[in-house]
Order: sequence, then C-alpha cells, then structure tokens
Amino acid sequence: MNDKRIYIDYNATTPLKDEVKEVLKQGFDLYGNASSLHASGREARVRIEEARTSVADLIGARPQEIIFTSGGSESNNTVFYTMEKLAQDNAGGAGRNHIITTAVEHPCVLNSATYLGNKGIPVTILPVDKYGKVKMDVLEKTLFESSSKNKAALQGDPLFVSIMTANNETGTIEDIKTINSLVKKAGAFMHTDAVQAAGKIPLNVKELDIDYLTLSSHKIYGPKGIGALYVRKGSPLYPLIHGGHHEEGLRAGTYNNLGIIGFGKAAELALRDLSEYQSKMSHLRLRLKNGLFAAIPDITINGHPDDVLPNTLNISFPGAEGEAILLSMDLNGIEASTGSACASGSLDPSHVLLATGAGPELAHGSIRFSLGWGIEESDIDYIIEILPPIIFRLRSMSTIKKN
Amino acid sequence: MNDKRIYIDYNATTPLKDEVKEVLKQGFDLYGNASSLHASGREARVRIEEARTSVADLIGARPQEIIFTSGGSESNNTVFYTMEKLAQDNAGGAGRNHIITTAVEHPCVLNSATYLGNKGIPVTILPVDKYGKVKMDVLEKTLFESSSKNKAALQGDPLFVSIMTANNETGTIEDIKTINSLVKKAGAFMHTDAVQAAGKIPLNVKELDIDYLTLSSHKIYGPKGIGALYVRKGSPLYPLIHGGHHEEGLRAGTYNNLGIIGFGKAAELALRDLSEYQSKMSHLRLRLKNGLFAAIPDITINGHPDDVLPNTLNISFPGAEGEAILLSMDLNGIEASTGSACASGSLDPSHVLLATGAGPELAHGSIRFSLGWGIEESDIDYIIEILPPIIFRLRSMSTIKKN
Repeated sequence: MNDKRIYIDYNATTPLKDEVKEVLKQGFDLYGNASSLHASGREARVRIEEARTSVADLIGARPQEIIFTSGGSESNNTVFYTMEKLAQDNAGGAGRNHIITTAVEHPCVLNSATYLGNKGIPVTILPVDKYGKVKMDVLEKTLFESSSKNKAALQGDPLFVSIMTANNETGTIEDIKTINSLVKKAGAFMHTDAVQAAGKIPLNVKELDIDYLTLSSHKIYGPKGIGALYVRKGSPLYPLIHGGHHEEGLRAGTYNNLGIIGFGKAAELALRDLSEYQSKMSHLRLRLKNGLFAAIPDITINGHPDDVLPNTLNISFPGAEGEAILLSMDLNGIEASTGSACASGSLDPSHVLLATGAGPELAHGSIRFSLGWGIEESDIDYIIEILPPIIFRLRSMSTIKKN
Repeated sequence: MNDKRIYIDYNATTPLKDEVKEVLKQGFDLYGNASSLHASGREARVRIEEARTSVADLIGARPQEIIFTSGGSESNNTVFYTMEKLAQDNAGGAGRNHIITTAVEHPCVLNSATYLGNKGIPVTILPVDKYGKVKMDVLEKTLFESSSKNKAALQGDPLFVSIMTANNETGTIEDIKTINSLVKKAGAFMHTDAVQAAGKIPLNVKELDIDYLTLSSHKIYGPKGIGALYVRKGSPLYPLIHGGHHEEGLRAGTYNNLGIIGFGKAAELALRDLSEYQSKMSHLRLRLKNGLFAAIPDITINGHPDDVLPNTLNISFPGAEGEAILLSMDLNGIEASTGSACASGSLDPSHVLLATGAGPELAHGSIRFSLGWGIEESDIDYIIEILPPIIFRLRSMSTIKKN
C-alpha cells in the first residue's frame, strides 16, 4: 500500500477541470438572483444565458431548448413525469399510452418506468443482445404490434421510447438515429439519456431528430448538482417541480449560478477537446485491454467490441469476485468500480450485465475501468502490473473455497 | 449614477460568506462520487456526513432526519408530492385527505397546493390577518370542522398543514408551535417552509414537534442549488426523483459534494452567529425604518410590527409605483425588490400583500428591504438620503398623470 492514487472511475464522476475551477472561483461573487430585476440579478442572468448557449452547442440544440435541472436523475424523471401525464390525460394522441425502454438503462430511468408500470400505465422493457444493444427487431415489433390485436387490453399505441445513447457500465453505444426513425414512424416521442455519451462522442439533437435528451455536468468535468434537459421546441413538458416563473415555468427554483456557469465552461471544453479526447482515450483503452489480456487468461470484455465509448472498458474476471478485486485495487491506490456507483451498497449483480445474458458469476466478477483526462500511459502500465497478481490470488482462494 | 452598489435584497439570495468560499475552494478536489466504494468516494461521503450534522444542528434535528435536495422548491414539492400520494392512497389514515395551507406561502407551495386541488384533492387556502398572520380561529375551524357535516362531499379529515415560519416578503413570523399543537390535535402532519427563517431566528424541530421543515442554502450565505428537507423519523416520505440508492432511496441523484459542504459551512456559521446577526439587523432595520418615516410622509409598514424577521422591512409608498421606485434606486446603486424575486416578470401585485387586505395601489407601491451581513450604517444612511427625492418625484409624476 502506498500513496499512489489512480482514479479510473470517470463514468462515476469526474474531477473539475482547472478551467472550470477558475470559472467557479471567479463566479463566487456572482451571487445575484437571476430572477431579480436589479443589476446583480441581471449580471447573473447574462452569465446563465452564456452558459445555456455553451450547453446547447455541445448537442447542436438552440439555447431556448435547454432547461437547467439539478442533474441527470431530475432530467430523466421530468421526462417520465411528463409521459405519465400524457398517458393519463391521453394528451399524447388518442389511445397513446405505451411506454418503452430497455433493460440496461440507468436506475433512475428503470425505476421511473417501474413506477409508471405500477400505476397501470403499460410499460415494455426491451431486451438487449449479448453486447447490450437493443434488439432492433424486437423494438420494431413492440412499436408496431402494439396497435394490433395482440396487445394487452389496456395497452394503446406507443407514446414514448427512452433509450440511452451509451451505457454507463459497458460503454456500449446505441444507434439512436436508426432507433428514432422507427420511433418517429410509430408517431411516438423519443428520449435519450446521453449522460455518459456527452463529451465522449459527437451528439447532435437536430441530426438525431429526437424530442428529449438528458445531460449531466459532473460527468464532463463540471460541478455536481447541475444538469440539463433538452426539450425540442414544441415537444410537451410538465414541470416536476412547481414554483416560481423560472425557466419559462418549466423548472422552479432559484438559479444555481455557480453550477450553471461551471457546467457551461465544462460543456465548452468538452466540445473543443472532443477529438483529442477520443484519440487519447482510445489509445489508453487499447493499451489497458491488450495489457490485461496478455497477462490474465480467461477474461472477457462486456459490451460491444466496436460501438463502445472510447474511455470505457468493462472486463469480467471469472473466478474472482468483483468487490474483492475492487478492495485489493483500492489498497494499491487504483480506484475503479464494479458498475454503477448509483447501485453501490446493493450486492446484486449488475442488471446491465445480467441483461446481456452474462451469468451471475461473470456479472459478479466484472470491473469497469472508465478512463479520463487524468490517466496517463504510466497509470495504465501500473494497473497492468498490479492487477494480474490480485486476480491470480483471488482465483486461487476461490478454488480453495470450492474444494 | 455612480459605481456605488448597496445590495439590500438578502431575502432574494445572499452572497457567499468568505468562510464558505474557502470551503468551496478547498473542496474543488473533493470529486469522488459519494456512492463509490473506493477512497475518493469514501472521502466525499465523510465530508457530506459532516455537513449533514451541521445542517441538522441548525434546526435541532438528528443528521439522519436531513435529506439533501436541490433547494427549497424541491424540498417543498417533495412534501406536497408525498401528501398527494397519501391523500390518494388514503394511507394517511382512513378518510384523511384534506390539505391546508395559507394565502401567503411561497409560489412553490401555493402552486403545489393548486396542483393538488386540480387533481380533486380537497385543499383549503387559509386567509391571513392584516399583518399576514394566519387567523388562528379560522385554522381551528378548518381543522376540526372538516369532519363535521358541513364539509364538502369529497373532503375527509385533515391530512396535512403547511404554513411558513416567516414570510419572504413581509418578514412576518408565524407561531408555528401553537399552530402545530392544533394540527397535532387534529391528527394531521405539519410542514413549515423555514427557508426565510433559518439563520434569522432560532429554530428547533424537536421543540416545535413538527414533521417536515424546508431549508435552503443560498438564503444563509451558502451556495445556490442545494437545500434540505427535515423529515421527522417515522413520518412518511415518497421520493419525487426516482433513481439510485442515494439518501436511503428518498432522493436520487449523485451527491452535490461542493453544494453540500458549502451548505454545511453556511449552516454552522448561521448557528454560531445567530445572536450577533439578530442584534445587528434589528439595529439597522430600526435605523432604516425611522429614517424613512421621518423623511417621507404617508408611508406604511407591511407585516407584523413585532413578530417580524430582524432583517426585513416592507414599506408601501402610496402614490409611487414599485417597479419605478426599484428602477430609480437601481440607477443609484441600491438593489432592493418589490417582493419575491420568484414572481418577477409578472406584473401582478404581490399575492402576499393582497392577502393582508392591502389594495392594489398599496401592493403595487411596496418595496422590500431585506438586510444582511454586508449592510452597514453608512449604507442605511445613503438609502435614507437617496430614496425620499425618488418618491417625491414619482408621486408628483403620478399626480400629473391623474390630471
């Protein structure tokens, strides 16, 4: 055990970039309530609108299509809340009430979907293939068969589809454009949780032609507690939080000046540095993958071999238990995770890996390495040096236990 | 017009205290996801729990009774959402569905109440007296008559009462302890929005014996975008935001490390400095009041003469229009407000002042001065010098217009 610390858990959260820290420090005195009419309020408002433009630019949206929220969970919940209202009021079009999502979404989407299902709204959780990608034929069948005679008694036409752009655990990237062309053909609204994709792959809501997109600041080296929801002009939105006239009445609460300007700077840098990010991360990821595969037998990659985030490498180490690997790595200063930090505390195997058909043993023995700007080649080499003996030791203990 | 800037709108929002800035700066590298198992995550978790204790101490709660939210609006909405579920499920006790609040609450409470009313849940909006205080006899009648034969067909026994501790516009303080003794006698849950009271008057949830209390960081010199909800151990709560396992499943979303530790520091300072705050603000408020009353005829105070926050002075200047007064003050570097910043953009007269029985002219011609740590005697004297000629000019123009 030493003082070395290699943080390789950037999909859980990221440190602030220096430029973001600088913006925050300079923003310490930007205290005006952006809803106030006086100079302090107007100054805050101007800086907030600049940040809104930076966030919009990251995804090719217009500033007025961006609503600031407290983060990805609130953004996703707001969309599901809107769909609940539409399904109940039937305002989504006569007979439209069917909500469709996938088995590999973030807990905040899956729990929202389950919640609506418990309220009697028809919800379909789509299966995924062995790489974690949505099965396009099943999606198509679900979208277009729901109006056939096979549908359940209470199930109307599809109202809404929510499929994440890239998975937080495996890094698998969905083909949102193709998915959305089916969704649009079925006349439904399309939402994507792009929290993990933003700043890692190009995103353009106009090219994708989607209705809603979720962003989070703390995944792109901005502050925590701030996120955004893209709402296409004309698409419906019901406020989850009732209150004052903020955000055109769509999201109440005093503007989080510091959070918003930090998020704006992070979005600006993410867009500026996207290609450099992609080439650096792809290089480091390949080095880590090759190093681990050369040193440790019988390991497998979780997620798609090609359609994957450049920074995410999820590996199963059969015969070793994920939490034990984490603990041993942590003692050696390597900070990774078994999957979603949001599910930590639960000892259940990853719902994402189970959905890909991995058995509980593989799912339990998986580690997610998620790279970021702070990782250098020497860090990768250190991991490649430290991890193999850990796995060998855990595997031998596991063999002993079995005997 | 000069470079002078006197911010006297502390009820809208407050600047960060220097000690809070210092905590934030030191916290820039506290980036771990508090749900992560590794050292970075654990470090964040420890700091968050320290802050939770500071926030709990401010209101005499136990740390485990504090839930962090994105602010006062979310906290209030979460309580109303919980009451919606209880009213619908009838889980609040057989026949309990009646929700009671007052006409002078913050828009996020009033809009939440209206929203529930539109859903068919019986809601009573209590009137207030000329000082903006809830009429105790009406409250009592409402609480105990609802089970009589006079109640509306769908109205059951009282489920929930929400009354703010101190009003944001007038500073009027309610007697929550006496109110709650009635509420408890009626077997209902009690919530108070203490966003404006915290750090200004002593608060103790155990002495008050209430179920829910709302706090906001940015009203006590902490960062924006973070707040808390006190939930008495055993009182029900339904999460407004579904997601991961954060906050014992009661509030999803990655922990806002910076916001939380800044809030914790602000709460600690608010408690430490409470009596100094009260004596300084009372002194400055009296100086401002006496100065303005000596210099300008025909002005009146809105709010209770004695049961009032030490920092809040709301004055009506009949014959002059509030927005015009604000604009002229702003040009002279004085930043006050006509009332709630959250209602800015609407030209409606203050709902709080209308509820006290003030006519539209009085309500339109009112200015809220809300003092804070940055205000000195010289600032008060500057306002007393600058404001009278503004009022005289506006009154004479108003007379001309009428002729």
